[in-house]
Amino acid sequence: MGDTRARILAAARAQFAHKGLEQTTWREIARAAEVDPALVLHYFESKETLFFEAIREIIIHQMETVFSNTRGTQPIGDQLVSAILDLWDSPDRREALVALVRAGVSNDRVAGLIRGLFESDIPSRVGARLVADRIEQRVALVATQIIGLVLARYVVGLPSIATASRETLVSLVGPTITRYLTAAATARGFS
Amino acid sequence: MGDTRARILAAARAQFAHKGLEQTTWREIARAAEVDPALVLHYFESKETLFFEAIREIIIHQMETVFSNTRGTQPIGDQLVSAILDLWDSPDRREALVALVRAGVSNDRVAGLIRGLFESDIPSRVGARLVADRIEQRVALVATQIIGLVLARYVVGLPSIATASRETLVSLVGPTITRYLTAAATARGFS
Repeated sequence: MGDTRARILAAARAQFAHKGLEQTTWREIARAAEVDPALVLHYFESKETLFFEAIREIIIHQMETVFSNTRGTQPIGDQLVSAILDLWDSPDRREALVALVRAGVSNDRVAGLIRGLFESDIPSRVGARLVADRIEQRVALVATQIIGLVLARYVVGLPSIATASRETLVSLVGPTITRYLTAAATARGFS
Repeated sequence: MGDTRARILAAARAQFAHKGLEQTTWREIARAAEVDPALVLHYFESKETLFFEAIREIIIHQMETVFSNTRGTQPIGDQLVSAILDLWDSPDRREALVALVRAGVSNDRVAGLIRGLFESDIPSRVGARLVADRIEQRVALVATQIIGLVLARYVVGLPSIATASRETLVSLVGPTITRYLTAAATARGFS
């Protein structure tokens, strides 16, 4: 059973990467995974859910890479903004990520998956590499800035953000992320 | 013609405030404005567009109030976060604002209206009260953080953000906004 699920996920990841969310069908994923299409539906409910599960490990892995980078010549916030822009600037992924954000904003089930990513998966996987206090709050704050940034750059298309260079965005937004992740906590907020 | 449009907007604003976006119908707005329902559709295309136009002045007015506040005991970013939370914490408005955000993320026409708000209306109305350089970029950066904050608090419901007190959020996010609005510009970003 775990194997079937994993096989469907691997097939979905390959199909999404190759053809994007819109062009990929249940049938193709099922065929690539060598299972019945009904089984794909049984495990994953909707294409957005399946896509989310398929890229969840990619996202977490990318976050782990950022947070385990001990060379540390760049501030952590700059590294994180770079990594997020890398993730989104790949054209294959972008269409699917936009679809995911749209689904997350309008579909409660997908919103729940996104909540889990930011409130549980990421804090538990990267938390040990950061200051130990208020890790959920810090990751959630980072999420607010990153979600707003990718919405403005890739979904809504605010010109100043959509046309800015990567270097500019890293330099403008990186310090925000660094502060959220590293500033000393006080009774009410951060110093 | 300008009068008819203004009358429809006033009627829509009253209906939305009273009943929310979902419960308000074209017919009721038309009746309150004393025009034919087809005329409402002619001027405004969709309920989201009409709603956007109806609250646009409220949003701009609120931003002007923040930016013209010369008492200045609180940093500008703290004042702005407070004002945004005020705008959203009114239950009547919240449902409609959530509908607006959802429409903005999935509907290109509404996304265009939101782009205009952040790239033109707000900079031109509040720009004179701020440092003069890169005002569009500054407002767009503020927009990324504010959009992410309201999405996390009111739409997706990230627990750490949704349950935080107003004071906590002001103290955590206010300094980000202050930096985006007031930090000295350098070649690539802000100091």
